[in-house]
This record gives sequence, C-alpha cells and structure tokens, in this order.
Amino acid sequence: MQNFVFHNPCKILFGKNTVPAIGTETLLLGKRVLLVYGSGSIKKNTIYEQVMQSLLAAGAIITEHDGVQSNPILSHVHKGIVLARTNRCDVVCAVGGGSVIDEAKAICAGTVVQHDVWKFFTGKKSIKNPLPLTTVLTLAASGSEMNSGMVITNDSTAQKFGFANKHLYPKTSILDPTCTFSVPQNHTAYGAIDAVSHVLECYFTTTDPHTPVQDRLMEGLVINAMESCNRVLEKTNDYHARADLMWTASLALNGLTSSGLGKLGFPMHMIEHSLSALYNVPHGAGLSAIIPGWMRYNMNKQPHRFAQFAERVFDKRTGTLEERATQGVSSLTDWFSKIQSPISITALNIPHTAIPELAENATALAKIWRMRDYSVEKIVEILHACL
Amino acid sequence: MQNFVFHNPCKILFGKNTVPAIGTETLLLGKRVLLVYGSGSIKKNTIYEQVMQSLLAAGAIITEHDGVQSNPILSHVHKGIVLARTNRCDVVCAVGGGSVIDEAKAICAGTVVQHDVWKFFTGKKSIKNPLPLTTVLTLAASGSEMNSGMVITNDSTAQKFGFANKHLYPKTSILDPTCTFSVPQNHTAYGAIDAVSHVLECYFTTTDPHTPVQDRLMEGLVINAMESCNRVLEKTNDYHARADLMWTASLALNGLTSSGLGKLGFPMHMIEHSLSALYNVPHGAGLSAIIPGWMRYNMNKQPHRFAQFAERVFDKRTGTLEERATQGVSSLTDWFSKIQSPISITALNIPHTAIPELAENATALAKIWRMRDYSVEKIVEILHACL
Repeated sequence: MQNFVFHNPCKILFGKNTVPAIGTETLLLGKRVLLVYGSGSIKKNTIYEQVMQSLLAAGAIITEHDGVQSNPILSHVHKGIVLARTNRCDVVCAVGGGSVIDEAKAICAGTVVQHDVWKFFTGKKSIKNPLPLTTVLTLAASGSEMNSGMVITNDSTAQKFGFANKHLYPKTSILDPTCTFSVPQNHTAYGAIDAVSHVLECYFTTTDPHTPVQDRLMEGLVINAMESCNRVLEKTNDYHARADLMWTASLALNGLTSSGLGKLGFPMHMIEHSLSALYNVPHGAGLSAIIPGWMRYNMNKQPHRFAQFAERVFDKRTGTLEERATQGVSSLTDWFSKIQSPISITALNIPHTAIPELAENATALAKIWRMRDYSVEKIVEILHACL
Repeated sequence: MQNFVFHNPCKILFGKNTVPAIGTETLLLGKRVLLVYGSGSIKKNTIYEQVMQSLLAAGAIITEHDGVQSNPILSHVHKGIVLARTNRCDVVCAVGGGSVIDEAKAICAGTVVQHDVWKFFTGKKSIKNPLPLTTVLTLAASGSEMNSGMVITNDSTAQKFGFANKHLYPKTSILDPTCTFSVPQNHTAYGAIDAVSHVLECYFTTTDPHTPVQDRLMEGLVINAMESCNRVLEKTNDYHARADLMWTASLALNGLTSSGLGKLGFPMHMIEHSLSALYNVPHGAGLSAIIPGWMRYNMNKQPHRFAQFAERVFDKRTGTLEERATQGVSSLTDWFSKIQSPISITALNIPHTAIPELAENATALAKIWRMRDYSVEKIVEILHACL
C-alpha cells in the first residue's frame, strides 16, 4: 500500500424523502443561492418543486441557472459565473447528475477569481476558496456528488478536461433513489458503466502489487454496479435496486478505492473524452466503446491482475491465467451488450478514419494528466482495438 | 437499504514517515496540547520522541497525561480532565491504540462541561463542543481513530459503557503501519478480531434483507482482516501486512459498513463488555470467546445470512443452508484458534458460576443501548453457549 491522504468531508443524506432537507443544508452555507440544473427534466417530476419549496421556506434568495447540457460546456459555465456575480450568490445548489454538479463546481471555483475558470483545467491556476456547494443527485453515475472532481468541455477548443481539488467536495449531497426513477433505460445503463469504469481505472492502472483491501472493495463495487443495474433495467421503479446503484456509484469514486494505490492514470476516460469532445457521445456509451478494446490491449501485460478480476467478479476459476483474463474481459463486454451499450467505436458510428484526430485530441489531455506513457501512436493502437 | 446520514470528516494521513506531521496538524487546532498516551510503550520505540519533536517544533505547549490502561477507566479520565483544565489545554493529541484514543475523546468531551463526563455514557447529557482531537495510531483494532465512538469503564460501578456522537471524530489521524511493528502477536490477533467483530455486529444484526452493497464491503473486510493478520503473525515487520490490517480495521468501523443497514445492535460487544468490566480481559480475547457461542445461538434464526457469509468469506459452496451456516461459524472459530485467541469463556478461566453476574452486568448496557430483545435470561443462554 502506498502512502495516502484520505479526507472526504462531504455529508451524505441518503434515502426516501430527503430532498426537503436541501433548504436547511444550503442555508447553513449562504442565503443567496445560485440554483443550477439541466434541461428541465426535474420539472417533469416533483424534484424542482420540492427543492424550490425547501429553499424558499429556509429563506433563500434564488437565482436560477438552467440549461446545463450533458458534457457541460465552458461557455455555459461562463454564463453561470456572470449570474452568480451579478446576483452576489454566496452558495451554489446543483440539482441533477454529474454534468450539472460538475458545472456547478466550475461556477463555484470561477466566481471568486478574476481569471478565466479554464485556467484551473489547464493547470495554470490553483483553486483556493470556491463558493460552497450543495447537491441533489438525480443520476447514479459520476460520483461527483461525493468527490472533488469535475469535467468540463471547452467548446471553443473541443477539449474535454477534468481534474480534482480538495476544495471542491460538496458540503452536503442529498441522494434520494426515487429521484432516479425516471432515468431512462439507456442512461441508467450508461451511469452504471461510468461507475464500473471508475473502479476499472483504479484497478488496472495501479502499479502497486500489494492492494488487497482496495481490491476487495473494488471487486464488490463492480459486482454491485452490474447487479443493481440489471435489477433496475428489469423494474425501473425498484427502490432497492435504484438505491444500491446510487450508493455504489458514489462509493466508486469518492477517494476510497484509490487511496493507497499510488499514482493512477485514467486512460479509458482520457480516450473517451476525445469521443465526447468531438462527437458528443454520452459519456457512459463512449466508455463502453473504449473499455473492451483497452482491456484487450492491456491484459497480457498483467495477466495475474486480469485473472483475479475474472475470478472474483465473474467467478471464472478454470483455465490458464491468460484464459481467465480473456474470460473476464469477455464477460464484462457481454454485460455491456446485454444492457445495450455500444462495445466499439464503430457501434457509435465513428469511422476508423477519425482515429488520428481522436488520438491527437486525447493526447492533449494525456499531457495535462501527466500520463507520459500515452503517445499518439499508442492511443491510435488502442483505438484500433476499439473498432 | 435504509435511510442514513454519512458524514465522516476525519482526515487520514496514512503511511510511512507520517508521524512528523502531527505537530502541524495539531497546532492548526490549538496551541496548548494535552498529550495522552498509555503505559509508555511508545517510549520503547521512537514514536514518543517523534511526536514530541514534531509538537515542539510546531510551537506546542505540552501537558502530558500518561498511564492510560487498556479498558480505560473513568477515574483516570477524571485526572486527564483536571490536567486539561488546569493547563488550559485547547486541543488533545492521543498517541496509542483504541483505549488511549477513547480516553482522549472522553477528556475532550468532559473538559468543557460542568457535569461529570459519565453522564454522557448513561445518556443523561449530550455532547456539544468537545476539545478537538488528533491521533497517532499504534494498534490496528478499534477503529476509534476514524470514528465517533468511545468506550470507558466506570471503575466505581464496574460498568463498561460506550456510545458515539458526531462531535467526537478526530480531526486528523495519523496511521503509520510501522508504529504497529512492535505490537506483540497476541495483541495483534486481538486487534484483528476486534475489527472482524465490528463487521459481524453489523452483518448479523441488520434486519434489512436488501444490503448487497454493504454486504460485499463487509465480506471483503473480514477476509482482509484475517489474511493480513495471518501475514503479520508470520512476519511481524511485514509493512504491507501491517498496512492492510491497519486500514482494514479503520474501514471496519468508520460508518461505511453500517450506513444503510438501519438500526443495529452490538450484542457481542455488549456481552464482552461484562467480561472486561468484571475480569479485565483483553477486549479482543473476550470477543473471540463470545462470538462463536453467539453465532451458534443465532445462526438458525437467519440461515440464509450465515450461509452467505460462509460462502463468500470461506468459500463454502456445498451442503444445505444450515450446513453451510455451520461451516462458516466453524471456519471462523478455527481461525480464532489458529491465531491463539480463546474460543470460550472457559478458556478465559471464567467459571460457569460467573454467568448470572455477567448477564446482570451486560443487561445494564442492553438497557442503555436500547437492545430490548436482550433479557437477562437470553444473555444467560448465550453465555452458556460460550462455555
């Protein structure tokens, strides 16, 4: 186990009927609230109404910033920052999935500084005193509700960049599984894939061979993400299945799985970000198109690791190391197919001729994330394995 | 999954050479430090020296409160409170295992109130603004370094009581596995058993049948506690094994395993506390004497649960539910024997004639912990199963 600091001060309120607590939790931090949300799906059920009622009852002065899109874009972040400044907001409340929460984090960080918020993403500036953030989660996927990361797409440069900073943890996040009942089948599946991918990035990029505590935690989370997703796809309003998927996704990227693993890469995300940046594919769909190819490309470099994954997650106990490793990758790919997510970039209608441009785009992020072992040539090879 | 609040703001600094950070971390919270430790084992290695140097270099004014015993006693807590008040301490730094940290927590809570600190333990008063606490952990066992609980024995009434309060989380805990290198074999084993017991209490007392996320987490922790303990007992200075055991013990009782399980009891601890209170047995040894009997007494009431435990933790896959349940209990008991911890109260030299008094003592705690299903008669039956 490598040295680590673990400090996740986010308060989680989990369960039925927890949304009405958002007003009290938010007003502990400020009175002038920037309410950030997406394209209005929260108005089709009762979530928007519940949040507004709770905030108003607690005495909030509310400025609304809606229209956050999936793969949230920098120009829209800029609009939010202007709104927050103009209305002297002192707290931000995000109601939505990872995109909404990520954009809210960018607004929290960007409102209080003179320079452009994008400088945080390119590593030119460091975050110090962002506005405090509360969230109401409506999609089990990114883990942003309980972590310090954010991902934004710069729509003027077509770069999808992300990073983490300890000041970006939400102060309080409300996780009511019923808020995800209306998430359609495809986005439920993409969310579960996102959670699985966060575990896989840690599991397969650590170079520490002594991580048994983290391994069991991660294997359990992958099993639970798959099983709970399957149950939701069978019955969309299954409270327990929605709850299991929601909590699994939060635990999959809240710092616990990665603590002690040493330096990690996020290569599957890095490559997927180029698909999202250039083709605006849903993040989870992009991931399921990349993961099988990335795993096939890498499994022979650490067959023990891949065999352990196959044995513990998919109960593959027979055959050689290499055979078990292959069975594990196949089983995961089969699960992507079963939940109807693409398993190749071809299935995303991205032509093989796009590979050079995708690789070039991904390389820019590889530099910022300091993944020096990912050259353009290597990314091209991996993308070919994803066709 | 039941509704829950999860909020663990404790900062963990984990790994080699982290002890010298204690000065800076503590001085962030206060300048006049009450340094709490035990019988002086930290002076036999370099831990005491490292801590003193770091605190002094950071500018601390130090008052020492040593002599904390395992199963820490109220009269010694009182002495610590007097010292803290007399020297106007504004922060407490605990260097030791769970006993030291628990006593430090009691001092933090008791120093700032007019009434006797014991009133917190009997539920007559509620904790509000305790002194802040930092810790340097020297024993993998109780989880106190990353949770809000504490256990103290009232030496005038022979009652070992414990409870948790959200204000009792340490602000920062330093977990350097090398600090546990000198822990002898028996106490290493007792510590691992304590960690396992914390998981078992949650695993077998939840009445929610829908807890797959927590189940996998808990099963993994039990496996890791056993495996890492075995490795330490083979090679006492195995850094990775010590690290795995240390982090496992912290995760076993930091609020994660219990979140979502609903109301839980701690019946094995409740009964063990009577052994410790009346016979001053080491906590882990008392637990291993109680756990097998408690499990045998209860396994037929929830054979599915016990069979799942047997299957996932001990790979018991054949036989009827009841057979697998039995195999799981036997396997765990065998492991206690293997690591040379007692598996009955008889092995602790406690005579069967003591059972009525033990049961009476335990019942007092059952009332405070509101475990109404534990009558004197029932505890007597369980203790007979532990002979």
